Amino acid sequence: MAPPLTPPVRTLMGPGPSDIHPRVLEALGKPTVGHLDPFYLETMDELQGMLRALFRTENPLTMAISATGSAGMEATVVNLIEPGDAMVVCVNGVFGTRMTDVAQRAGAEVTTVEKPWGEVFSVADLAPALESKPKVVGIVMAETSTGAWQPIPDIAAAVRDAGAMLLVDAVTSLGGVPVEVDQWGIDAIYSGSQKCLSCPPGLAPVSFSPRAVDAVMNRRTKVQSWYLDVSMLANYWGSDRVYHHTAPINMSYGLYEALRVIHEEGLEACFDRHALNHQALKAGLNALGLEFTAQEGHCLPMLNAVRIPDGVDDAHTRRQLLERFGIEIGGGLGAFKGQVWRIGLMGYASRANNVLLFLAALEQLLSEQGVSIDAGSSVAAANSVYQ
Amino acid sequence: MAPPLTPPVRTLMGPGPSDIHPRVLEALGKPTVGHLDPFYLETMDELQGMLRALFRTENPLTMAISATGSAGMEATVVNLIEPGDAMVVCVNGVFGTRMTDVAQRAGAEVTTVEKPWGEVFSVADLAPALESKPKVVGIVMAETSTGAWQPIPDIAAAVRDAGAMLLVDAVTSLGGVPVEVDQWGIDAIYSGSQKCLSCPPGLAPVSFSPRAVDAVMNRRTKVQSWYLDVSMLANYWGSDRVYHHTAPINMSYGLYEALRVIHEEGLEACFDRHALNHQALKAGLNALGLEFTAQEGHCLPMLNAVRIPDGVDDAHTRRQLLERFGIEIGGGLGAFKGQVWRIGLMGYASRANNVLLFLAALEQLLSEQGVSIDAGSSVAAANSVYQ
Repeated sequence: MAPPLTPPVRTLMGPGPSDIHPRVLEALGKPTVGHLDPFYLETMDELQGMLRALFRTENPLTMAISATGSAGMEATVVNLIEPGDAMVVCVNGVFGTRMTDVAQRAGAEVTTVEKPWGEVFSVADLAPALESKPKVVGIVMAETSTGAWQPIPDIAAAVRDAGAMLLVDAVTSLGGVPVEVDQWGIDAIYSGSQKCLSCPPGLAPVSFSPRAVDAVMNRRTKVQSWYLDVSMLANYWGSDRVYHHTAPINMSYGLYEALRVIHEEGLEACFDRHALNHQALKAGLNALGLEFTAQEGHCLPMLNAVRIPDGVDDAHTRRQLLERFGIEIGGGLGAFKGQVWRIGLMGYASRANNVLLFLAALEQLLSEQGVSIDAGSSVAAANSVYQ
Repeated sequence: MAPPLTPPVRTLMGPGPSDIHPRVLEALGKPTVGHLDPFYLETMDELQGMLRALFRTENPLTMAISATGSAGMEATVVNLIEPGDAMVVCVNGVFGTRMTDVAQRAGAEVTTVEKPWGEVFSVADLAPALESKPKVVGIVMAETSTGAWQPIPDIAAAVRDAGAMLLVDAVTSLGGVPVEVDQWGIDAIYSGSQKCLSCPPGLAPVSFSPRAVDAVMNRRTKVQSWYLDVSMLANYWGSDRVYHHTAPINMSYGLYEALRVIHEEGLEACFDRHALNHQALKAGLNALGLEFTAQEGHCLPMLNAVRIPDGVDDAHTRRQLLERFGIEIGGGLGAFKGQVWRIGLMGYASRANNVLLFLAALEQLLSEQGVSIDAGSSVAAANSVYQ
């Protein structure tokens, strides 16, 4: 017999899941209703409205895929791509690499445009690939493996001028920095519930522009995934309410409450909070001598990737953070494994308390490992940002 | 701004989601930890152990897919099938039809074996299709659209003799009737969290036999779905703990507690409870003159599909059940739309209280619509089963 379920209380400052808002945890346990219950259908309508406000879009086809953020990636790709379609994927970290794999599995002829990890793409970087007239261009707005913040507007314009559709990974960015689906002209976008939305993992918000919907509805072939086929999902989320799969009711409750929390705060205030706490953390980390991996001027506020100082033990330090302080941060992925820490300040985790606690704990652990530190300097630097 | 989330309290006696056990609802809101947290890795091990005990298997590759039951269907199909592979699908309701669609999207050359809705398959029914030496044979153990209970052992033996792999849909059966993966020789099986496991929808338990794993590991082509590729999922659920996607932590808590509840009761006691409450409901429904749609001797205990009496308004009756009594039952699907009610007694919903309350409410609603009823007869018939 498995033991009773007694999870430890953590401060989640990794690449996600992030700290869950208490109101969201409470919502998860509310009474389950059926997936065609009038109450649930109203809940879906409200969810769609709140997601549209968050994505800043009027797209009718805006909803939550019943799986985690990676399934959001797969859902956008497999609906837009038919076997043999040309797709350009921008790769400067783990998630661009993943998108390439997903697209190739969907039968796309993929051309990758690559930049060193931590850098971002300019229109000039993409120009040669756009000449081949791809159907879809995929790009990651917030590369969670490097902390790089990719600007979208100019690239969106260039992609549109080339007659292609723009597919954007907003898993880590949505809810932490501005995402303007309609103004920028994004055709398909996906996110995850467990980053800046302060909700547990399990749902993937997505939105498709009218021309993306046209492309889906006029496919020559069926979408390879029955589960992710948005032409059927649209009949359940739309006014027809045709049964497709059984929706994850209680996860939807969590997302509903998470979106209420965000809209109560207001998007601008929410973005300002993410920016402020990032500045404070950055000041503190700089005081400790840690360097960010992302290109200057392109550091994500919610995902701070820094190089591990020489002589410091990655695994030991993260284990001590977890065991002594209950703080989770992320290690490096892929090419950055063992070289980088990823410190998340996402959603409810983006709080001054988390910044100060983490810096104090890290200062202690680095000192123990012989790193020369001006005692108290990181907390003082962070505090000066807040004052 | 969306209103506060205040779901009504329902008695869920439809085709799923079923009534959620209170301990499961409580577990959903426990503190979220990271998907690589030592606590969560232990939780995954315990989940796998409890799932193996439930599936009655030693299969190492036994886990929960991070999506709903339909994604479990897709996961088993797309991992076993490569483009051009021959698959036989047994179709006697909605879910066999769905499996055909999923398999064709995966590139299978599908041969369907069909029986009228409500009937089940014999070895003789499958024999001609097995002569073509398919790679995989798919069959639904509990056809949720008809209430038919498909016996598996003889068919499993015939499929094995034909050199094919057997893929079984156990979405509605698992936890309500015996499912013997190893003893019967099932190669791939999937279920859903929201039926007899008394957990909200959102996870799909699956298990693959060693020879199914061999088939996956020796594919010529990549699995078309990155998200559902079990060769990668096995590296996360196995001892390597390689990051794949961010697991749905809190839904896993729910499934964990749901499995604890089942194993505390004991599988035999759990199956006996489902059988007893089905007998009581059946006695009551027969007293009201309602007929089951499933073939005699093959009625599922957890999903009771009955013909709607002449002159009774389907939508009105179900709406009254919901609005006046808070009881949800299911309408008919596909060919049975408007003709059939589907009354679930799944997991925590399989209780004498639910049976008696439902019969009393239905008797009232049928009487109001002019059906001639011997007052109190249905409850009396059910009570006689319990005495």
